[in-house]
Amino acid sequence: MARAIHETHLVGVFAGNVRRLRKALGLSQEDLAEAAGVHRTYIGMIERGEKNVTIYNIERIAQALNVRPGTLLD
Amino acid sequence: MARAIHETHLVGVFAGNVRRLRKALGLSQEDLAEAAGVHRTYIGMIERGEKNVTIYNIERIAQALNVRPGTLLD
Repeated sequence: MARAIHETHLVGVFAGNVRRLRKALGLSQEDLAEAAGVHRTYIGMIERGEKNVTIYNIERIAQALNVRPGTLLD
Repeated sequence: MARAIHETHLVGVFAGNVRRLRKALGLSQEDLAEAAGVHRTYIGMIERGEKNVTIYNIERIAQALNVRPGTLLD
């Protein structure tokens, strides 16, 4: 579709929440990637708002950050 | 990946929330599809837990249901 990812408000909200919660836990992007079972570069892309993440990966990241999944979208 | 969609807990939570909130508003799947700008069959697949929806579409569906996006994952 023509709409760019960064134009989607919620992708940016998710990006900011992941970065904020990761830092609050004192985790590097690499630490979070390992805990969530994803690649380190994927975490970087998420935090830059470049990824339109699916529910499946929202769940993995929420578990790794020890928060309810909905927290990441609010 | 080998894991089937329906094995993902959060996909099922999302599915149940969409169905419950849609019915609470007295909307048909077709009504919701039109409001969210997606195809009717897509709503059916979501409510059966067959879709690993992305943030972009979570946002559209939340707007159509008039709820915060995080509500759909909790």
